[in-house]
Amino acid sequence: MLSPSLEDYLEQIYRLTLSPGTVRVTDISNKLQVALPSVTKALYKLRDQHYIKYERYGEIHLTEQGNDYGCYLVSRNQLLQEFLALIGSKCNYAAEAEAMEHYLSKETIEAIQYLVAFLRDDPAWGRAFADFMKQRTEKGNPFILG
Amino acid sequence: MLSPSLEDYLEQIYRLTLSPGTVRVTDISNKLQVALPSVTKALYKLRDQHYIKYERYGEIHLTEQGNDYGCYLVSRNQLLQEFLALIGSKCNYAAEAEAMEHYLSKETIEAIQYLVAFLRDDPAWGRAFADFMKQRTEKGNPFILG
Repeated sequence: MLSPSLEDYLEQIYRLTLSPGTVRVTDISNKLQVALPSVTKALYKLRDQHYIKYERYGEIHLTEQGNDYGCYLVSRNQLLQEFLALIGSKCNYAAEAEAMEHYLSKETIEAIQYLVAFLRDDPAWGRAFADFMKQRTEKGNPFILG
Repeated sequence: MLSPSLEDYLEQIYRLTLSPGTVRVTDISNKLQVALPSVTKALYKLRDQHYIKYERYGEIHLTEQGNDYGCYLVSRNQLLQEFLALIGSKCNYAAEAEAMEHYLSKETIEAIQYLVAFLRDDPAWGRAFADFMKQRTEKGNPFILG
C-alpha cells in the first residue's frame, strides 16, 4: 500500500499520461506545487515499488501495475466527487474528495460505488431525496448535528 | 477547530461523562491506550481552548462548549457508523468511522445526515438497494474499481 502522499503523486502521474507527450519531473512539480527535490524523492520511492520507470533527468513511464493503480486512484476520486454531488453536499467536491479518498477502506469505496450506480440508475430516488431535504430544511434542521 | 487528535480526546471525555463518577486522567489513558504524559499535554490544550476545566491531579469537567462539541463528535461518529451499515460496506464500522470522521467537512456530514434520515424513513429504498446490489454481485462486479 502507498502512503496518501505517494498516492497523490501516482494519481497525478496517471493524469499526466492521459495528455500527449512524455511526463517529466517539472510537470509533476508544477501540478502538485511541490519543490523538485521532494518530487524526485517521491519518484524514487514509486520506482522502488515498481509503479514507475524513472531515471534521474529522464522520462517517467508507468509500469503496468502503476497504470492500473493510477487508473484506480483517478476513478476513486471521480467516484467520491460524484457521490458528494448526488447526496447534495454543499462542499467543494474536489477538495473534499481529496481529503476523503485516502481514509476510506476498499470495502467502503465498493459500497459507495454500488450506491452511486443505484442512485444514477433511478432518477425517482433523486427527486424523492430532494423533496425530503426541502421539507426538512423548511421545518428547520431537526437533527442533533449541524 | 481542534486537531483530529484533540477531537479524539474530547470525544472520549464526553463518552466518559455519560457514565457515573468523575473523569480522571487515568480513565482517558486507559480508554485511548495513550501514556499519561501525552494525555496530560492534550488536556492542557483542551483547557486552554476552554473545552474542559482541569487542574493537575484534579478532576476533569467539560465546559458547556466542551459538552456541546463532545456531543457533536459522538453523534458524528454514530452517524458515520450508521451510514456505513446502511450502504452495506463490509468494513469494520467503528474503525472506518474513526478514520473518516476528521476529514469530512460539516457540509458533507450534514448531507450524510439527510441521506441517513431519508434511508431510515423509507424501508422500500433499502430493499430496492439490496436487490440492486444482489443483481450486480451475481453478474460479477461490473465496475472499474475493486
